[in-house]
Amino acid sequence: MSFAKLLELKAQLGGDDGKQTFVLKTAKGTRDYNPKQMAIREKVFNTIVSCFKRHGAETIDTPVFELKETLTGKYGEDSKLIYDLKDQGGELLSLRYDLTVPFARYLAMNKITNIKRYHIAKVYRRDNPAMTRGRYREFYQCDFDIAGQYDPMIPDAECLKIVYEILSELDLGDFHIKVNDRRILDGMFAVCGVPDEKFRTICSTVDKLDKMLWEDVKNEMVKEKGLTEEAADQIGEYVSMQGGMDLAERLLHDPKLSQSKQACAGLTDMKQLFSYLQLFQITDKVVFDLSLARGLDYYTGVIYEAVLCQTLQAPTPAPAEQNGAVSGEEGGVSVGSVAGGGRYDGLVGMFDPKGRKVPCVGVSIGIERIFSIMEQKAEVTEKVRTTETQVLVASAQKNLLEERLRLTAELWNAGIKAELLYKKNPKLLTQLQHCEETGIPLVAILGEQELKDGVVKVRNVATREEVRKASQSKHELNITLLKTMCFMMLHE
Amino acid sequence: MSFAKLLELKAQLGGDDGKQTFVLKTAKGTRDYNPKQMAIREKVFNTIVSCFKRHGAETIDTPVFELKETLTGKYGEDSKLIYDLKDQGGELLSLRYDLTVPFARYLAMNKITNIKRYHIAKVYRRDNPAMTRGRYREFYQCDFDIAGQYDPMIPDAECLKIVYEILSELDLGDFHIKVNDRRILDGMFAVCGVPDEKFRTICSTVDKLDKMLWEDVKNEMVKEKGLTEEAADQIGEYVSMQGGMDLAERLLHDPKLSQSKQACAGLTDMKQLFSYLQLFQITDKVVFDLSLARGLDYYTGVIYEAVLCQTLQAPTPAPAEQNGAVSGEEGGVSVGSVAGGGRYDGLVGMFDPKGRKVPCVGVSIGIERIFSIMEQKAEVTEKVRTTETQVLVASAQKNLLEERLRLTAELWNAGIKAELLYKKNPKLLTQLQHCEETGIPLVAILGEQELKDGVVKVRNVATREEVRKASQSKHELNITLLKTMCFMMLHE
Repeated sequence: MSFAKLLELKAQLGGDDGKQTFVLKTAKGTRDYNPKQMAIREKVFNTIVSCFKRHGAETIDTPVFELKETLTGKYGEDSKLIYDLKDQGGELLSLRYDLTVPFARYLAMNKITNIKRYHIAKVYRRDNPAMTRGRYREFYQCDFDIAGQYDPMIPDAECLKIVYEILSELDLGDFHIKVNDRRILDGMFAVCGVPDEKFRTICSTVDKLDKMLWEDVKNEMVKEKGLTEEAADQIGEYVSMQGGMDLAERLLHDPKLSQSKQACAGLTDMKQLFSYLQLFQITDKVVFDLSLARGLDYYTGVIYEAVLCQTLQAPTPAPAEQNGAVSGEEGGVSVGSVAGGGRYDGLVGMFDPKGRKVPCVGVSIGIERIFSIMEQKAEVTEKVRTTETQVLVASAQKNLLEERLRLTAELWNAGIKAELLYKKNPKLLTQLQHCEETGIPLVAILGEQELKDGVVKVRNVATREEVRKASQSKHELNITLLKTMCFMMLHE
Repeated sequence: MSFAKLLELKAQLGGDDGKQTFVLKTAKGTRDYNPKQMAIREKVFNTIVSCFKRHGAETIDTPVFELKETLTGKYGEDSKLIYDLKDQGGELLSLRYDLTVPFARYLAMNKITNIKRYHIAKVYRRDNPAMTRGRYREFYQCDFDIAGQYDPMIPDAECLKIVYEILSELDLGDFHIKVNDRRILDGMFAVCGVPDEKFRTICSTVDKLDKMLWEDVKNEMVKEKGLTEEAADQIGEYVSMQGGMDLAERLLHDPKLSQSKQACAGLTDMKQLFSYLQLFQITDKVVFDLSLARGLDYYTGVIYEAVLCQTLQAPTPAPAEQNGAVSGEEGGVSVGSVAGGGRYDGLVGMFDPKGRKVPCVGVSIGIERIFSIMEQKAEVTEKVRTTETQVLVASAQKNLLEERLRLTAELWNAGIKAELLYKKNPKLLTQLQHCEETGIPLVAILGEQELKDGVVKVRNVATREEVRKASQSKHELNITLLKTMCFMMLHE
């Protein structure tokens, strides 16, 4: 960095010409994370990553930008939302739009045929930001996927178990997980008389059922998409159905639906899935819901979406978006939706020069929405600590900086999180206030008398309880202090 | 993602026109991190972040791109290495080039006058990549900074303590930390007769002393930069000096150097710094070295750089770069340099509309270089595990999938990291091989006999030692297993 240039800039800022108006802001649709937000973010990440690791997942990372052509043709009309980099010579690049396309590119490029991986990283969309509602142009995605040729529904069931564990541990309130299967949907469309070429567009209309009344959905099917009223009514009957394994069993004997081989395959797998979910003891939250359609086109089998039953008075309800079939996990989710995913057996093959397929099933945790909810909860409940400091090394008299520095270093060396104020002679009150402001639970107070007596005084900041412990030698000071602190912290 | 579009693309790939050659690669100068690299990266991050937290630091995050004007005029001639985003309407944006400018922008924008924060994130430079030597266009920086008006040298000493702790814990081999002060350098230049306007350029020549012989450095000063031979020789005498507090004391009485007020201020602070380093017990690795100059222009006081004493036969020696004064922490560091930093009291004020100063001191850990060294060490030593799975739930006979699923879920619920193969009837050998390949230490083997007897068999994969424990009830199975495993793992 050129200091001279900075001075120049400074002069311009304060200059008289008034042409240069330097705006101190972040780019549109982006934000800094302050320490409090980072503390919440870290807590959420820890919970989620622990779960992924408990399930034996690895992690990978990919560059923030890809060759433009890697993304080309992958996002339909939403391609206009991709950030391109300026052509400064060399390759044409774009910022990644999601983590799924880079994952598929990674698998194909490295000829990987099976992996269980998670990837938590930022993605970029030049969308209309609605930051008060938690919609940003730079936001996190948090994907877990199992790639590989396995026996039916075992990895699929694990994905649902993972969603169940994460949402339970994050304590976001009651939730349920809707499950359906693209083959059941397609079979249903077929037997209801929807022409083949209208499957996907009717599917995306069905997907709006969580935000629109049936009447309006039907209207869209009939008036906008040219479906017969009879077909729409038949669809209407099916998509109102919800249940569990029993429903799958019943529909397998449904005179109409059972005529579709696709639907039968989906229903048989659905039964299998539920049998595994029973073994996992999570059927209490899982609903087989024929109205679930999911936005993305690439799903080929089971699909699912987790929904919070009652949202807090969230300032961040995901708006009913018009992204259509390609809005992605963070975009086109319904109000209260916090996770979604499904099976996509065809995607990786699209990247492979020889078209080799790698079956995949995955889930994306709606982490930005979870951040918002956690931030909101933190507002109304206790103070969020932004540091983890356990003890402040303070002094009650002047001229004890050296003693404070020495003791602090001993604590650091013992692995204890410790701080001191960077002042030669801070007031005791100032030091105690620092503890209260930042939530440091303990303060070790050095005084001349204590040093003379060879004791150390530790105070619990909240209860003001004090413990004085004698130490036979300098060397023992630390150990004594350590034990004292542990004792006090355990009894907080 | 439009499936139709993918199919279209696919058709193009396999098409006959031959025009579309789809290249499966990452952008130039970037790389994916595979699971093994991620495991190493995570280990390094954990060590470093633990240290930062032990010192009471908070963390922040900033967007990956900034307004172009925020970066404009900050990096001198290296501005050409900034990645700009394409103008797609709206603001002009650039990818961040380092973490220091966004930090200064953050402080000024939020009127923060004191903070102790770390920031680990990727930055972007359109530099000539040398990937075999660990130089990328997308790479991590890892910065720790203390901003605020404090008593002299206390935060500065803490930065050095942090470098000492991190390098010790990472176990990279012996190292030393060179320390100097810009005021001492400037004072030295003044008393040696360097004209004011040549301070910075002579400073950047001095900075080359760790890669060039004195004769060549002197030549550059005299022949390229027009210094008198006498001045150069006087500089040569000073920059050969190394020592500790004693050297600072001696130079304070140096007839020539003591004539410079600046140098005296720097030397007095250097003495103070060493007295704190003594209290921290880290003077064994710290050297006051008058040849240390550091690249960046913005330093105003103490500067430091940590160097590995003997590099492993590294495939990644940082090349002698010609980035000059603005090469930054990852760029212009000498061979073996793994951390660097210093005091920069003027930078934040450049961003503040009223020019309010926020004194800062910080350190940047050369994390990409550390990754390289750790990766290299991992090559020659043990296998790096990419998962943390503790136990594989296996079966010795057919038709035990349900039992495997049930037990695995019980283990997950008990917080144990467990896996099973996603096959209905995997062979025992296949299951054991999976353990060996991925380093899973324990395997719980279910068999019909065991189920009948109500026992569970756990095998230590490495030692083949087996433990069978009876369980009174289904419910107890898990607890028994858990204890068994813990016992076995402790005795590995």
